[in-house]
Amino acid sequence: MSRVLKLTLEYDGTNYVGWQRQPTGTSIQGLLEDALAPFEGERVTVHGAGRTDAGAHALAQVASVSLTASHDVETLMRALNVVLPSDVRIQAIEEAPPDFHARFDAVGKVYEYRIVNAPFVSAFLHRYALHVPQRLDLDAMRAAAEPLSGTHDFAAFQGIGSVVDGTERTIHAIEWQPGAGADQPLALRITGNGFLRHMVRNIVGTLVEVGLGRWPVPRVAAVLDSRDRARAGPTVPATGLFLVRVLY
Amino acid sequence: MSRVLKLTLEYDGTNYVGWQRQPTGTSIQGLLEDALAPFEGERVTVHGAGRTDAGAHALAQVASVSLTASHDVETLMRALNVVLPSDVRIQAIEEAPPDFHARFDAVGKVYEYRIVNAPFVSAFLHRYALHVPQRLDLDAMRAAAEPLSGTHDFAAFQGIGSVVDGTERTIHAIEWQPGAGADQPLALRITGNGFLRHMVRNIVGTLVEVGLGRWPVPRVAAVLDSRDRARAGPTVPATGLFLVRVLY
Repeated sequence: MSRVLKLTLEYDGTNYVGWQRQPTGTSIQGLLEDALAPFEGERVTVHGAGRTDAGAHALAQVASVSLTASHDVETLMRALNVVLPSDVRIQAIEEAPPDFHARFDAVGKVYEYRIVNAPFVSAFLHRYALHVPQRLDLDAMRAAAEPLSGTHDFAAFQGIGSVVDGTERTIHAIEWQPGAGADQPLALRITGNGFLRHMVRNIVGTLVEVGLGRWPVPRVAAVLDSRDRARAGPTVPATGLFLVRVLY
Repeated sequence: MSRVLKLTLEYDGTNYVGWQRQPTGTSIQGLLEDALAPFEGERVTVHGAGRTDAGAHALAQVASVSLTASHDVETLMRALNVVLPSDVRIQAIEEAPPDFHARFDAVGKVYEYRIVNAPFVSAFLHRYALHVPQRLDLDAMRAAAEPLSGTHDFAAFQGIGSVVDGTERTIHAIEWQPGAGADQPLALRITGNGFLRHMVRNIVGTLVEVGLGRWPVPRVAAVLDSRDRARAGPTVPATGLFLVRVLY
């Protein structure tokens, strides 16, 4: 008899190609599937709530897996944390309803993008934030973020080469939290029902143009309305990106 | 004309052999000396306030160097932070009195040792803390630390193979700060006029024995009185050790 488990995990994505298995490089999904196989006696497929980019981090990614192995969840969690590398940690394993699927059942996600806005980045943060040495105008970035809230066609902020059914998404909340100095990043926290490929990184890249004073505040709303990726700002690096929570 | 500069720097020591130049491996001192040489046009010697161990970290190490190069300190700092690896950052450079010496003038140091006392260590902290999964009795560790405060012969806590003039040191403050879960380490913060080789790590190793309930509280005072290294606890790994501040 098989059962479905819900795994909550965190990872420092610096050394990985992202959540999803790739032809080369180590993925978080691959690590988990490899770690689970000996318990099951055969290959298993682990489904993640969302594909995090290469180098992006997770404070609480969620994954689901169907297992016949009967180990209790506490033992399984402790054993997986022995087998997995130290930069990937299982926080919790719970028994889930038999039809639970980490991706299909997710109703939303919270992401955070961190930026150190200081002359240098702390030696302890360089893997976890974008460095912007020039002063960012937080008020302007806040004003520019406002029109992104709500239900819109986010095609302008979609990564090039994406193929998805539709580009309409709802942002429930989008908020800049202030930082201070080399040790304290400022952060854009964004909650939505779903995100297109590179959407958070493209939104941040666009808002940073405003923060630097290169673009006026109203240009962000115009970019959104244009649905034209070529009009949005650059894609900021994945280093600063954290999947904070998955909502069910 | 030469001048003496005081450098304040932080580093993630994970990838380094410690502060001091070694026959093999990369040291922080070596990185700084290599980075400064092109500005000076020849080799320089950088003096650090204290030799941090291989793998140990610094939140504010202090170093002094005599330079004839006339670059203003802001420019020098920015340039060094471009040249140095991202896990070593200069926080400040100041002109110091001509006789300033980072080691000889230091009157004290503050160290912190961090321990994650939870079933697992956060994926973001495994380089920065010791993992102790068994519950630690903080009250017992606090009581056991008390007799270490003050002026004592700390020979029992000196690393084997050390050659120093004397083993008497004064601890001005020694304090456990509570932690919480996988993300929030508990920490021993210790301020003293000087520290023997491995002294903080040996003190922590001894206090952890008490915290685990293996040793009774009074045994720590007895170890101190014995002046016998063989009676103290194990040397905990350098991963959890931070040089927090140098006092002048």
